[in-house]
Amino acid sequence: MVEHVTENHGVGGSIPPLGTIPARSQSGGLTSTGIPSGSEGSRAEPATIFDLQTPALLLDRPRLRRNAVRMRDKVRMLGVILRPHVKTAKSIDVHRVISADADMPITVSTIAEARYFFAHGVTDILYAVGIAPVKLPEVAELIRAGCKLRIILDTVEAAAAVRGFAEAEGVNIEALIEIDSDGHRAGVAPDDPLLIEIGRALGPGLAGVMSHAGASYDCRTRDEFEAMAEQERALTVEAAERLRAAGLPCPIVSVGSTPTLHYARKLDGVTEARAGVYVFGDLVQAELGTCSMDDIAIGVLSSVIGHNRHHGRVLIDGGFLALSRDRGTGEMPVDWGYGAVCDPLSHAPFENVTVSSTNQEHGIITSQSGPIDFDRFPIGSRVLVLPNHACATAAAHDRYFVTEGGEEIVDVWERVNGWQ
Amino acid sequence: MVEHVTENHGVGGSIPPLGTIPARSQSGGLTSTGIPSGSEGSRAEPATIFDLQTPALLLDRPRLRRNAVRMRDKVRMLGVILRPHVKTAKSIDVHRVISADADMPITVSTIAEARYFFAHGVTDILYAVGIAPVKLPEVAELIRAGCKLRIILDTVEAAAAVRGFAEAEGVNIEALIEIDSDGHRAGVAPDDPLLIEIGRALGPGLAGVMSHAGASYDCRTRDEFEAMAEQERALTVEAAERLRAAGLPCPIVSVGSTPTLHYARKLDGVTEARAGVYVFGDLVQAELGTCSMDDIAIGVLSSVIGHNRHHGRVLIDGGFLALSRDRGTGEMPVDWGYGAVCDPLSHAPFENVTVSSTNQEHGIITSQSGPIDFDRFPIGSRVLVLPNHACATAAAHDRYFVTEGGEEIVDVWERVNGWQ
Repeated sequence: MVEHVTENHGVGGSIPPLGTIPARSQSGGLTSTGIPSGSEGSRAEPATIFDLQTPALLLDRPRLRRNAVRMRDKVRMLGVILRPHVKTAKSIDVHRVISADADMPITVSTIAEARYFFAHGVTDILYAVGIAPVKLPEVAELIRAGCKLRIILDTVEAAAAVRGFAEAEGVNIEALIEIDSDGHRAGVAPDDPLLIEIGRALGPGLAGVMSHAGASYDCRTRDEFEAMAEQERALTVEAAERLRAAGLPCPIVSVGSTPTLHYARKLDGVTEARAGVYVFGDLVQAELGTCSMDDIAIGVLSSVIGHNRHHGRVLIDGGFLALSRDRGTGEMPVDWGYGAVCDPLSHAPFENVTVSSTNQEHGIITSQSGPIDFDRFPIGSRVLVLPNHACATAAAHDRYFVTEGGEEIVDVWERVNGWQ
Repeated sequence: MVEHVTENHGVGGSIPPLGTIPARSQSGGLTSTGIPSGSEGSRAEPATIFDLQTPALLLDRPRLRRNAVRMRDKVRMLGVILRPHVKTAKSIDVHRVISADADMPITVSTIAEARYFFAHGVTDILYAVGIAPVKLPEVAELIRAGCKLRIILDTVEAAAAVRGFAEAEGVNIEALIEIDSDGHRAGVAPDDPLLIEIGRALGPGLAGVMSHAGASYDCRTRDEFEAMAEQERALTVEAAERLRAAGLPCPIVSVGSTPTLHYARKLDGVTEARAGVYVFGDLVQAELGTCSMDDIAIGVLSSVIGHNRHHGRVLIDGGFLALSRDRGTGEMPVDWGYGAVCDPLSHAPFENVTVSSTNQEHGIITSQSGPIDFDRFPIGSRVLVLPNHACATAAAHDRYFVTEGGEEIVDVWERVNGWQ
């Protein structure tokens, strides 16, 4: 966790009028890890969301806590272990909140995340992207250092490569076989003879099966969600049983996505559940019913930088690099464009407007019907743009500016982006 | 420029067979700035594109040089100053190539870019996103440090804020008025009385006008491009003349986009031209005719990680975080999906396939017609994915792995991402 921002040089609870912005000296600033370098003492560090440079990613801790508790309760009720997917937050500070400082296993999407979380004390890690052979040396490095890192795969070729590498290097590499439970992305079908072939090719490294029903994002009714959750569970358990029937071990049976866990009624035969985006929520999740609009814990703070009165446009400095290009709500009942434009303090959406288009550092706010009210968006005022897809938007930023339900920035948390 | 990668621990010119990947020791790695920390001497640093961890952003220097020369020649022919937009590359090393190590002014899209390039010796900088008042203290800081930094704006409110701030702080801040030459984004129309009002509100800070015809991306024929280039020129020059007729100074007349500069036949009345993406090119630019497919200088190196034979999918570890969500060719004559799948050495596209969908760390390659040939994409083999939009894809990475027409990685160049 990086240093707490304690000084308050802010301008108070309202948007500062033009021309009253306090000047900064030439010293100070943030270091590359997001730690305020305030030792020179003369530069006013941002203390509230109203004097923070924009665009900036805000994270509201009470909402994060609420989302974390809801999923912990749900998974406890289902009687399995929660293995949150840290690809959404990529932050040990967020993980401390979602795990309530307990020892909790995690799922990662990059080797960089595995290295970072292991360095911060997390030891039980599933790397849940099909293994590329070029990554095996780094996997072995982490395992030798004491990390209980497991990988996944879905081909005989990869299984043979993992076994060959493990034997040559004298390291025990455990892998789960990815099961295709929804026809959506990767994995082998539970009734495909390949499943047993892969299990045999893995040999002593076989540790179980896993599946992710990404097709749950196409469900629209409670019945569809519940059926998809049951399908993910049933097909993954079926795969485990087929392996066992062939005399192969299958101790781990891992399933999950935020929608399927939210709607699952039972997880019989499953040992652990994975989900990521629930920690922040987003506009897609709100439309899927897994959270409310008010649960969304992150947003991009942006400044109004222009008015194009001829074309009815308010311009903000949150463009596609800050908001992401994700148009996840484009095909959903409510199309939020590139994000919902909200009051930065209350998170209440401004009615009848969206970020309807973006360029690299420009967001264009337009009215959905009738003329736009420019007086609601004075030059220099601030809006909070809630994301379509929290994972994509958060990945555009290297740190979170943490709030506690109000305007004060109470902390700055770093993220582990990238791959190398 | 970060350290040159000199050691060669590579596997040679071919894709390494499964199970033959050399192990790495636990030491070494890359530092947060991308500088290889090879001093322990025991970890094999990637020396070729075949032992680099994936996904990774490759930059081919000969193609970059070729693109740079072409634009320098074109702008010299047009008789104006070239002020390249560094938002595409965000790298002083790339700028050294595109400027041929000469003193060349630049355009930036963030204050972070301005700080970085000024720290690396570039002194004439235009920050070409409408100014947010909260950024004025940092603008003043750079100007006081000796940077010839100018800003842009398109409202009386912003002009008054800039003038008020400059007078209160005793610093001379020069601004260009943004002109709307295409109805595409921001700016004031040249015949709008607001133009003169903004000029008067700026007072001594008025330094000129600028425009960017983003609508050029909607052109499809040479006639349309040439007409758009002429419209951008003519309306921006008209704005300058109206300011002068009102007794206001307008020394700088700045226009540009990669398509309008590529197709412009004259720039009479203009003083400088801006363009960014030409340095790398991309699939959108190739379809607009400003470069060839073979000119595209960057691509995302990815590994094949899975085969879903039931659904005819090859999975790679380049997902939307590595490729970006940009679907810029979606409405163009050839829709490349999330990118063109190429041989990593020759850059020749594999025929009949695209990255048709992406998740965070998964890219899905499918056939455009007929069954996919899995034998062309063995597990662990490598592809290079050329980007729809180079600016968006490059921004997903913190460094470039530089090649010189072959497999060897000859350098690693850092980027200045983010805002704080």
